[in-house]
Amino acid sequence: MAPLTPKLVVPIDLKKKPWEQKLPLHNRWHPEIPSVATVQTGQIFRMEMVDWTGGAIKDDNSASDVKYVDLSTVHYLSGPIRVVDEDGPAKPGDLLAVEICNLGPLPGDEWGFTAIFDRENGGGFLTDHFPCATKAIWYFEGIYAYSPHIPGVRFPGLTHPGIIGTAPSMELLNIWNERERELEENGLKSLKLCEVLHSRPLANLPSTKGCLLGKHLQSNIFSWNTTTQAQLRNFYTLSNGTPEWEKIAMEAARTIPGRENGGNCDIKNLSRGSKIYLPVFVEGANFSTGDMHFSQGDGEVSFCGAIEMSGFLELKCEIIRGGMEEYLTPMGPTRLHVNPIFEIGPVEPRFSEWLVFEGISVDESGRQHYLDASVAYKRAVLNAIDYLSKFGYSKEQVYLLLSCCPCEGRISGIVDAPNAVATLAIPTAIFDQDIRPKANKLPVGPRVVRNPNIPRCTYDGNLPITKNLSATPSDK
Amino acid sequence: MAPLTPKLVVPIDLKKKPWEQKLPLHNRWHPEIPSVATVQTGQIFRMEMVDWTGGAIKDDNSASDVKYVDLSTVHYLSGPIRVVDEDGPAKPGDLLAVEICNLGPLPGDEWGFTAIFDRENGGGFLTDHFPCATKAIWYFEGIYAYSPHIPGVRFPGLTHPGIIGTAPSMELLNIWNERERELEENGLKSLKLCEVLHSRPLANLPSTKGCLLGKHLQSNIFSWNTTTQAQLRNFYTLSNGTPEWEKIAMEAARTIPGRENGGNCDIKNLSRGSKIYLPVFVEGANFSTGDMHFSQGDGEVSFCGAIEMSGFLELKCEIIRGGMEEYLTPMGPTRLHVNPIFEIGPVEPRFSEWLVFEGISVDESGRQHYLDASVAYKRAVLNAIDYLSKFGYSKEQVYLLLSCCPCEGRISGIVDAPNAVATLAIPTAIFDQDIRPKANKLPVGPRVVRNPNIPRCTYDGNLPITKNLSATPSDK
Amino acid sequence: MAPLTPKLVVPIDLKKKPWEQKLPLHNRWHPEIPSVATVQTGQIFRMEMVDWTGGAIKDDNSASDVKYVDLSTVHYLSGPIRVVDEDGPAKPGDLLAVEICNLGPLPGDEWGFTAIFDRENGGGFLTDHFPCATKAIWYFEGIYAYSPHIPGVRFPGLTHPGIIGTAPSMELLNIWNERERELEENGLKSLKLCEVLHSRPLANLPSTKGCLLGKHLQSNIFSWNTTTQAQLRNFYTLSNGTPEWEKIAMEAARTIPGRENGGNCDIKNLSRGSKIYLPVFVEGANFSTGDMHFSQGDGEVSFCGAIEMSGFLELKCEIIRGGMEEYLTPMGPTRLHVNPIFEIGPVEPRFSEWLVFEGISVDESGRQHYLDASVAYKRAVLNAIDYLSKFGYSKEQVYLLLSCCPCEGRISGIVDAPNAVATLAIPTAIFDQDIRPKANKLPVGPRVVRNPNIPRCTYDGNLPITKNLSATPSDK
Amino acid sequence: MAPLTPKLVVPIDLKKKPWEQKLPLHNRWHPEIPSVATVQTGQIFRMEMVDWTGGAIKDDNSASDVKYVDLSTVHYLSGPIRVVDEDGPAKPGDLLAVEICNLGPLPGDEWGFTAIFDRENGGGFLTDHFPCATKAIWYFEGIYAYSPHIPGVRFPGLTHPGIIGTAPSMELLNIWNERERELEENGLKSLKLCEVLHSRPLANLPSTKGCLLGKHLQSNIFSWNTTTQAQLRNFYTLSNGTPEWEKIAMEAARTIPGRENGGNCDIKNLSRGSKIYLPVFVEGANFSTGDMHFSQGDGEVSFCGAIEMSGFLELKCEIIRGGMEEYLTPMGPTRLHVNPIFEIGPVEPRFSEWLVFEGISVDESGRQHYLDASVAYKRAVLNAIDYLSKFGYSKEQVYLLLSCCPCEGRISGIVDAPNAVATLAIPTAIFDQDIRPKANKLPVGPRVVRNPNIPRCTYDGNLPITKNLSATPSDK
Repeated sequence: MAPLTPKLVVPIDLKKKPWEQKLPLHNRWHPEIPSVATVQTGQIFRMEMVDWTGGAIKDDNSASDVKYVDLSTVHYLSGPIRVVDEDGPAKPGDLLAVEICNLGPLPGDEWGFTAIFDRENGGGFLTDHFPCATKAIWYFEGIYAYSPHIPGVRFPGLTHPGIIGTAPSMELLNIWNERERELEENGLKSLKLCEVLHSRPLANLPSTKGCLLGKHLQSNIFSWNTTTQAQLRNFYTLSNGTPEWEKIAMEAARTIPGRENGGNCDIKNLSRGSKIYLPVFVEGANFSTGDMHFSQGDGEVSFCGAIEMSGFLELKCEIIRGGMEEYLTPMGPTRLHVNPIFEIGPVEPRFSEWLVFEGISVDESGRQHYLDASVAYKRAVLNAIDYLSKFGYSKEQVYLLLSCCPCEGRISGIVDAPNAVATLAIPTAIFDQDIRPKANKLPVGPRVVRNPNIPRCTYDGNLPITKNLSATPSDK
Repeated sequence: MAPLTPKLVVPIDLKKKPWEQKLPLHNRWHPEIPSVATVQTGQIFRMEMVDWTGGAIKDDNSASDVKYVDLSTVHYLSGPIRVVDEDGPAKPGDLLAVEICNLGPLPGDEWGFTAIFDRENGGGFLTDHFPCATKAIWYFEGIYAYSPHIPGVRFPGLTHPGIIGTAPSMELLNIWNERERELEENGLKSLKLCEVLHSRPLANLPSTKGCLLGKHLQSNIFSWNTTTQAQLRNFYTLSNGTPEWEKIAMEAARTIPGRENGGNCDIKNLSRGSKIYLPVFVEGANFSTGDMHFSQGDGEVSFCGAIEMSGFLELKCEIIRGGMEEYLTPMGPTRLHVNPIFEIGPVEPRFSEWLVFEGISVDESGRQHYLDASVAYKRAVLNAIDYLSKFGYSKEQVYLLLSCCPCEGRISGIVDAPNAVATLAIPTAIFDQDIRPKANKLPVGPRVVRNPNIPRCTYDGNLPITKNLSATPSDK
Repeated sequence: MAPLTPKLVVPIDLKKKPWEQKLPLHNRWHPEIPSVATVQTGQIFRMEMVDWTGGAIKDDNSASDVKYVDLSTVHYLSGPIRVVDEDGPAKPGDLLAVEICNLGPLPGDEWGFTAIFDRENGGGFLTDHFPCATKAIWYFEGIYAYSPHIPGVRFPGLTHPGIIGTAPSMELLNIWNERERELEENGLKSLKLCEVLHSRPLANLPSTKGCLLGKHLQSNIFSWNTTTQAQLRNFYTLSNGTPEWEKIAMEAARTIPGRENGGNCDIKNLSRGSKIYLPVFVEGANFSTGDMHFSQGDGEVSFCGAIEMSGFLELKCEIIRGGMEEYLTPMGPTRLHVNPIFEIGPVEPRFSEWLVFEGISVDESGRQHYLDASVAYKRAVLNAIDYLSKFGYSKEQVYLLLSCCPCEGRISGIVDAPNAVATLAIPTAIFDQDIRPKANKLPVGPRVVRNPNIPRCTYDGNLPITKNLSATPSDK
Repeated sequence: MAPLTPKLVVPIDLKKKPWEQKLPLHNRWHPEIPSVATVQTGQIFRMEMVDWTGGAIKDDNSASDVKYVDLSTVHYLSGPIRVVDEDGPAKPGDLLAVEICNLGPLPGDEWGFTAIFDRENGGGFLTDHFPCATKAIWYFEGIYAYSPHIPGVRFPGLTHPGIIGTAPSMELLNIWNERERELEENGLKSLKLCEVLHSRPLANLPSTKGCLLGKHLQSNIFSWNTTTQAQLRNFYTLSNGTPEWEKIAMEAARTIPGRENGGNCDIKNLSRGSKIYLPVFVEGANFSTGDMHFSQGDGEVSFCGAIEMSGFLELKCEIIRGGMEEYLTPMGPTRLHVNPIFEIGPVEPRFSEWLVFEGISVDESGRQHYLDASVAYKRAVLNAIDYLSKFGYSKEQVYLLLSCCPCEGRISGIVDAPNAVATLAIPTAIFDQDIRPKANKLPVGPRVVRNPNIPRCTYDGNLPITKNLSATPSDK
């Protein structure tokens, strides 16, 4: 009968750099990035991918690679994939349904990393509290991950791709660039949240630096096999030189935020058996994926916060003709202001008890914000970090842990002015000790011995750091 | 052996008004509201409560009661309860652990309501889109709720108290009043979120209007049994007249937002078997509870959004001496800037598949906001409403439904500048039709017939309404 | 709108004996037991019930009541309830759908018991190993139960009625009596399983002793209000005297086993939100219910094995006209050889990890049985008991615990001749210690101290006891 | 840091026959089958395996391969694996903990089969009802399986190895052979269950026919690389000729039943994250595994009943020194009468609603059996088959489906003489139609069209067939 083995449409050779892969990767969104493969609806196919940094972070005990990482090159994506059915390619206005049949780490690469970026090179949700570059390595034992840097925890992964999205049309791309440029230019003046979240820059605008545009223009210039690695890197990332490349690079959107095309959604439950309904903006849909996470907490708070890894996806596509109009209502000034829909499947780790930390929209200085869920969630995460640090961990270990363990970040109340209430629920079973409050004191002497040392760099910059004045001396 | 039947410490007579109950209710937070009962740790006791409006909303087919509701009187709380163990009363600095052993509707009152407030009297998360007062009645069949106003859905309740909190100290109360007054006075100038969320007022400051302070001063003035209802209402809520009452009323915090003492957390998972660890600020802890919800969606988006009902709680308390310092780290300028911790138990409805709607922090005008989870969640909810309205519901029916069904509101991504990604996950099993996108068109002719009529008033005010310019005519 | 409060159709007064209740109870199945109430389909109604022994077992520290219990009187059932819809009463051939809207202990009676019967008065699944009458008392804290007699465990209840069934027709009753009499008379000769299970008698045939037939004949003889308790007891249970009563009592089936009418199914998942589809054999359906369990393990191995209690049910009925033919296929010589269908709802305690014990169909003497799931399950339970007894419990404590905790008894393999494989899965979270095997030895000295003493009588009989010759001395 | 990629210790080449694999397979249990590899505790390693028939059943539309399958050769197992830690090899009396880190189908072989054996060649639990050889092919889409032969169902797999076990010692092997021979010789006379279950033969005693003993003796005779396939097959399975081989073959136990060493447990929940604690009987533990199932229902009722496939396991071992005495209590005449323990992990498909069918221990002729869970389960399965056949399926389709879908077979009551109550719970979500009973009639005319045709052979034998006399004509 019919062959069911997934066809490998995007292979990855982990011994090669991102720009050396047989099918070129890309790290920008642009309608003119050519598709690298075509798939039929109903067909199961396999896409492999590098980790989001393309191998820049190593399985070692130093955080220097994190501190000095070149963020202009992320995220390396596999694709675009052109999707066709018996009526031809997907067309703008269709919905592309992508089912995740299977996924996992690449064989021979069963490890991942979670990191805190330096305050001045990437930052993160709590960068004003934790300005130093820090790293934890995770090893996989089938469904479980554990870290030599954060002992005493082990949890099953809800593995998912952080990024999956379709190519934008030029019209959509222009909308993105315009609104993000407006924010970059005027945000500091007009938005108070920037004071509180402290994660600069406000947006990441297109740039030629680090830009990789897939196989764009490539075939016209030189043969793949005879080009040296230096030539290739040069070509793609530095002084490509052709006016056409420059033009596209200056238009192509960065992959950092999620947008109308899906993209960096970081929805941690998009694992085996899930389905993603993506709007189609260009012929063929041209979807790309990358940024595989072995596990992630809601919010991915430390930014490089999931357990980041290379990996593979086995996918199956369906085209819902005219589905954008049928199922998505635009919400904004144009008919392109839509968002994808997702369907979560029946296979997830099952936890019995959860410990929940709450935050309200009052910031660390005591200032009241108005129904601000981001501020509330920041406080919930800070509360959880301080709490768990009482059980033998350093605060940075907990910050890393909450970024990547299967914790749930909820908007519990968003109407009771002036306080939004956000909660962070942590499954108690991931710890090898009972972390619930107890009537008796926390053990002090013969407490379970931890290793509070994680790979960590100094922070040498000048941006402000938030101190918690009320913390006990040992907490500071 | 030992008697285990919960002792009834706060009885409610549903035939009486809130101010006529045997043990007086209160609707403000203040350290001088006297406790109405004392319980021992380890003892199981029962507290009954009126619904949050004290019976103002009726089981009928008109939304007039919603439109003209007097919000100065909410929420009516039962308590305060003073907690003691063998070492005496709980003391400031302790943690009070409250276990929810059982809870449910009051016998004879097995129904609830969900409402949208008028744009100028209460509002809600989407009040700029849905300005009209609207109401849906829900009936309970054991664990299930169904509504004649929103046919085709039935779901098991995850019943919980919306409000549980300890009495604040004067020091904490002053912190609250100061920061909320600052917001009320300066928020419109400095906070851009107010433009987007449109839910006025920014805060609810203390007021004598509608104020109910428990049994404060009562015993000195007249005997309970001989006072008329009119006298009582007068006494508590209008012109109480004594300078002491006036002073307290002008200090006592409104119960609308959740704060450091817990309060209106609206954490929908706090059901049977859950445990709440509340900081203690005054001797005896003096905790109060109210605002019972048969079911609620994360965020409780329509404000009067849960299935609101009267009900009972069976509770058991434990005092963790010195627990605030042991387990809670203050996060802010004083040692009182803490939040409670919650523990969720093993009994919850179990759903298999979820449909997930996403929002990013771009508002309806297309403007980019910086990592703003509230804006992102607003868009996720709007997306879900428009989607579900294609299955035979009016948008207001869906808005009501998402406020009260067991949907999950998540902060999925909070670090990928400039877009926060928020998601709303809806269990598909609550509908009697398959709501997932399908390759074939939505049925148009012989579609399942719905009743799109819900009790609804007109909006006669002048505040701005948000129109979605991109919506199809039938959606507008 | 419509009143939803369940109408109380069968009240219980716990201060009265079973035969003194206002609406008489019954403890036999017979078509001529008159219905005590009529309910409409769609109506929610409440039935209260005594525990299965009608109060014979006390909340105390002695097992004498268990040892000498009069089993001729069990189970006391509430009902029968006659069900009608707009077309009249349910008719033979219909299906009666009963939804369990709510259920729980009776207020003021929040405790239960689990017991091991004496080898010669009731026995149980492992009666040849544990011949002594033994008892454990359980107290309820909302959803949780704990026992002073089995410390260190606490678990949420999956409360359910052990018995729910419709009245049999005379034709069905005759089938029951015939086949059970045949077993009673010839079983010891022809069935080898009897040697292994050792639970005598083989069947429980009709008897006048202890027989309670509801309000049968009662109204003709004396007025309810003026009769003394002694007269009543006499009337119902001893020398009723009338030939008609004698005839019915000698026909009426005991309630011990589950049969075609449902009855004592002991399906532990029939809790809130479940639905039971019962075949209708007599006009009105005349269903009865009783034997409420706060919690039960699959198999209810100690016979009096659930946490037995009094309780209430809130129910809603529907009649599926002609449903027996539509949905049930008879399996046997007549069209009455059917079984009910059950639907389990979405609310159950959620456990994450399970420890699983296995048994194969080889008995304690080493003898091989052919695909015998009963023998295999016996060994699985014995294995679990011995294992858990290493953690500070006596074996009888564990036997009681496995009867009533939410453990799952599975038929894992039933085709791999000659061994059936049965498994017993125990949720690890019900223990306050980690019960999984560990590389290090079990703690011996300062082990968690347990109380291995439970109320227990001696066994004074002569029936054979099975000894495990391979057990270590301390196990014997 | 440390390499984590699982080391491939048992490779399978699917293009080769079982007896041609590089590391020889075996299909018997015997202490002298040599280990094929040694693993260290803590190391993650990968074992591949053929399906249990070694490729005898094809992905096609004929059931002839099932009808004439040679059952003397099953199950083909991979191993034995010798396990060592820093103190040397595992020793008799230790416990071997095997954690299943990952598992799945072999790449390029993503399909499986479920079959009903012929009444006279293998049979099955309901072989007297369904005597014809029948087959269904399943295809995998990641976590899901679907079958062209049973349309309208799709379910996530709970993939697991049907067989995992340690090598028996000679002492244990002798116990097995003795008790199974006794059954084979005397069972028909003494065991009534054989009449009811109708699955012959009673046991499968050792035989030289089809016997494969791993690499036993192989190295002494000829070089692996230069031997022809015919020579190899001959050598292993037919006329091996050496007296030593003959002796071992006549002692070596068949792999059909589960026994003290684990073996064919068919516990469907032993998937990712599970742990198996196996008793060690010979030095090195020498465990083997095989019989991979993509999915299985409790009981695996059709015998070839799971979705049978080739596959891989990634495992990690731990040795618990002295663990047999520490954790396992023998239950029988010798200290070898033990059973393994299993630990089920947190990742399983999550279902919300279940439809439950019940059976009691009354057989199809109406005869009463005494607390016989096998008879009760047979009736529960028959009830489920008849019920589901009303929704457009043939009964054989349902029989196949219940063998392999994630249904749960429970022993609900085992103490209520004379009826054992067994239940079969089926998750309703695996069907694409609502299979619950409804007040309205089943659709008859434009019912969902099914394909009731499955690959099926005739039954040409003479063994008795059970007819259900009460079934409606269309059911017969």
